[in-house]
Amino acid sequence: MDESSPNLFILALVGPLDLWSDMETSNDRLNNQIQFILEIDKLKSILRQNILTDFSRRENSAEHSWHLAIMAIFLAEHSPEPIELIRVVKMVLIHDLVEIDAGDAFCHDLKAQEFQGEKEMRAAQRIFDLLPKDQCQELWDIWREFESGETADAKFARALDRLQPLLLHEGTDHLGWRKHGITLEQILTRMKEVSINVPAFWPRIEKNIKEAQKTGALRASPSQ
Amino acid sequence: MDESSPNLFILALVGPLDLWSDMETSNDRLNNQIQFILEIDKLKSILRQNILTDFSRRENSAEHSWHLAIMAIFLAEHSPEPIELIRVVKMVLIHDLVEIDAGDAFCHDLKAQEFQGEKEMRAAQRIFDLLPKDQCQELWDIWREFESGETADAKFARALDRLQPLLLHEGTDHLGWRKHGITLEQILTRMKEVSINVPAFWPRIEKNIKEAQKTGALRASPSQ
Repeated sequence: MDESSPNLFILALVGPLDLWSDMETSNDRLNNQIQFILEIDKLKSILRQNILTDFSRRENSAEHSWHLAIMAIFLAEHSPEPIELIRVVKMVLIHDLVEIDAGDAFCHDLKAQEFQGEKEMRAAQRIFDLLPKDQCQELWDIWREFESGETADAKFARALDRLQPLLLHEGTDHLGWRKHGITLEQILTRMKEVSINVPAFWPRIEKNIKEAQKTGALRASPSQ
Repeated sequence: MDESSPNLFILALVGPLDLWSDMETSNDRLNNQIQFILEIDKLKSILRQNILTDFSRRENSAEHSWHLAIMAIFLAEHSPEPIELIRVVKMVLIHDLVEIDAGDAFCHDLKAQEFQGEKEMRAAQRIFDLLPKDQCQELWDIWREFESGETADAKFARALDRLQPLLLHEGTDHLGWRKHGITLEQILTRMKEVSINVPAFWPRIEKNIKEAQKTGALRASPSQ
């Protein structure tokens, strides 16, 4: 077979070429979508402070987002308000995309957080804009909704985003908290939103924090 | 503050403790769900043959699943049949969980594929069973549906699972195909299902394959 003419081979395997003759019009749209899909591959190289439960390395933001999406599916029943699962899943899948340009600012590092909002806005403008206009708009809407944390869907999505790292810390002897000298006050401040929005998670979070205290993983607060 | 009595501090921050007094009954269920959530963290250490588009390392199955879920959201319009997005997203998020025990068998390695089905069944039995019974059953159903590839949702989910690595190969000069000596015939055989189930993807796949041929990334078939 002449390699310069692959169509004959493709033809034999998949059928007549006019199978896709009426699809040309949507090609621009598909091309833009694929450009976006290739771009967001970079989220797999954005590292978070958490380490994996096998202690092998730091977690990245793409696999973190995957973890949250699975949590959304299997923990949805614990939301005190009715939620629309697909919207929560979308939120957690896309909530960290802006980190591709803005990086992951450690939640307890107030200095790193200072210009983070501005950086993330610029990142959203560049990355979301790769999509066709209607999908770009949808992505803005869902990201803003997550960031605002006002709707039932966003409250639940944000609670998952705070619960998941806590679980990973639990699975890794709270090494991250020890390394960064995190205090009880910092953890409780960060978890307050969860205790209000998804109270069903609270007993488990309390157990986790108590365990961290017992093993000396939390630093004494400056005021203590 | 006395660190041995964190409840007083928690109380001050989050309100009265009887906030969660009526939640004890659901604790077993939540505990099982969290055990499952911690267990599946291991998927982040299962490596695939693809490398990331920044050439830094091999992709893992958790971030691959995240990528597919985002693709499902933004490419759903290309399914020739109506699909239920949340079902497709669930499928792609969970389709590789069995690899935690069974490992990732390279799709073009027929020897590695030989006992894969059996290994994956045993893995599903162990991992899915961590969940409460109703959710365990749902997970089995959705995984089996994906594996069978007969419904519109499964056909689309499987097409994404084949398109995504192709895009990563495109973004990495097809290094994976070069390394493993992949032939045109192998790629076309693997992609045939996509050409039938989501014909809208075909022109882009064809372009990708032609580019790989042009740059010599595909090995000549033994029969050539």
